[in-house]
Amino acid sequence: MPDFTVFKGAKDGSPFKTTTSKPDGLTGDQVVVRVTASGVCGTDLHYKHADMVLGHEGVGVVEELGPDVKYLKKGDRVGWGYETNSCGHCAACVSGQEMSCPERSLYGFANHDQGSFSSHAIWREAFLHPIPDGINDEHAAPLQCAGATVFTALYDVKPTETVGILGVGGLGHLAIQFAAKMGCRVVVLSGSDRKREQAKALGAHRFIVLNKGKGKAPEEGEPWLLSRLLVTTSAQPDWEAIIPMMAPQGRIWPLSVDAGNLVIPYMSLLAGAIRIQGSLGSTRTVHRDMLAFAARHGINPVIEKFPMTEDGIKEAMEKLEKGDVHYRAVLVAQ
Amino acid sequence: MPDFTVFKGAKDGSPFKTTTSKPDGLTGDQVVVRVTASGVCGTDLHYKHADMVLGHEGVGVVEELGPDVKYLKKGDRVGWGYETNSCGHCAACVSGQEMSCPERSLYGFANHDQGSFSSHAIWREAFLHPIPDGINDEHAAPLQCAGATVFTALYDVKPTETVGILGVGGLGHLAIQFAAKMGCRVVVLSGSDRKREQAKALGAHRFIVLNKGKGKAPEEGEPWLLSRLLVTTSAQPDWEAIIPMMAPQGRIWPLSVDAGNLVIPYMSLLAGAIRIQGSLGSTRTVHRDMLAFAARHGINPVIEKFPMTEDGIKEAMEKLEKGDVHYRAVLVAQ
Repeated sequence: MPDFTVFKGAKDGSPFKTTTSKPDGLTGDQVVVRVTASGVCGTDLHYKHADMVLGHEGVGVVEELGPDVKYLKKGDRVGWGYETNSCGHCAACVSGQEMSCPERSLYGFANHDQGSFSSHAIWREAFLHPIPDGINDEHAAPLQCAGATVFTALYDVKPTETVGILGVGGLGHLAIQFAAKMGCRVVVLSGSDRKREQAKALGAHRFIVLNKGKGKAPEEGEPWLLSRLLVTTSAQPDWEAIIPMMAPQGRIWPLSVDAGNLVIPYMSLLAGAIRIQGSLGSTRTVHRDMLAFAARHGINPVIEKFPMTEDGIKEAMEKLEKGDVHYRAVLVAQ
Repeated sequence: MPDFTVFKGAKDGSPFKTTTSKPDGLTGDQVVVRVTASGVCGTDLHYKHADMVLGHEGVGVVEELGPDVKYLKKGDRVGWGYETNSCGHCAACVSGQEMSCPERSLYGFANHDQGSFSSHAIWREAFLHPIPDGINDEHAAPLQCAGATVFTALYDVKPTETVGILGVGGLGHLAIQFAAKMGCRVVVLSGSDRKREQAKALGAHRFIVLNKGKGKAPEEGEPWLLSRLLVTTSAQPDWEAIIPMMAPQGRIWPLSVDAGNLVIPYMSLLAGAIRIQGSLGSTRTVHRDMLAFAARHGINPVIEKFPMTEDGIKEAMEKLEKGDVHYRAVLVAQ
């Protein structure tokens, strides 16, 4: 295999095609993956001006194996997401919480010379996740970060809970499907009525339009207080409108990316015994359970396909930036 | 028993003595308690201008029993705290989470004609907590709210955790003792060096002086990241200085009373997988487990005694307001 093709961020925000050198030989449990599909995530937009290879929702086929690879074989289909390495020795790692390893490799913070907007990538077997039969590569790609992120926030849900999903986009449309198949009552909160029927088709039991500054819109019947809320919008919501919708002891998972502060009414938080739970992607255990769950229940992202080319990437990212992707852009190898 | 003596808040902030009428007969599981001691809590200061009887850390002796009382006998020593009733039928109540009952009776929100700054009070047996032998009335009083509040934040702690206690006052000095006896590593954070020796005598393993705006002061040896932090100061801390002290997946329990917003760096919360857990006092189960734990380990509050008189109440509240109480004021029946 010669050096491989990658697409990097650029000063002007238009990712460009270049190459990354392949090492002379693989070491340890390194695996060469030929990329077949990659999701395009909001986080990629944050790095479009950075000098690094873009993409962290990769899926592909195993092409070469390092000397210590144990389980993967050539031809296996695998994916990877936001985390691609950790030390394996610290308290976080040995307790299965490698997302909290101080030496973790996260997208944007490590491995700037490779990503999933590429022809190939080399990762440790330990951080590659076999794709179950029944999920094709293009659908598997958005599960690697969007799917894993929302699944983490649902991992300890009780099937009797009432789960709110704020936002119907790349993350939200997967969260609706997961929560519905987990047996939960699913309430979708959205800024407009536009996605009501789509949300219901994905499994939502109730759809509430948030009127700016007015809290929830009137709905027939009893209000359903939320025992859990996944905030999947790209920006933080109006917390003052959100808090009264939470059940006592409800749990809020803010999954937006936001450089500012979390500002939330203090006494309402205490009086409601509300929990705010920070989270930054999934552990490998959760990731693999998510893939198995998606396969078992036929859960697939709704995708729009673009070619894995400079033009395709540019088009996908521009559409994502405008909020026009329905619901996840996927780059497909040519 | 004639009408009983109570001390109410007043417009000028100087609580005054008056009386509350006793009902002609007790109903249900009502119990008349002759008050022997009451703690004075920061929350009482918030109501010193209100037209209501003050006090919610009550201890006393059972004097009369309603027709449906089942377990208490005349002469039993009992205490009560922040919550004195709930509906008994809602989802919160039937799952043992009566602090989240929508019809709960909380101090300041219900029963304005009686409290623990008084000669007597009438409460339901269901919300009175027997005081174990080995804890005297004066020491039992501050446990009813301060003790129960911090015990709630420690109720699911693992003995291997590193627990931070921010603030050494009415709540903090009890939290230090509980956490130490639970087997945890206890780190006390304080605004000055003044209470270092006292905190160590109570069980702290490390004492860190927070320099305003500078985060923690230099300490010898490895930093101990906090898996849990109880914020027991009267106002919210500088969250930007606090977050870097938290271990990954650390849990923060803000126990201050504050009318403003919680404002905390958003991405640090996500990246650290930090949890912020709101809480508003204890369930009865936690309250009773707390009393048993305190008795078993000889945990007592450090108290300053004042007479249960207009002058005594005024002196105790003024001293508390100045932050001069060492560590909990207790009013003692004359």
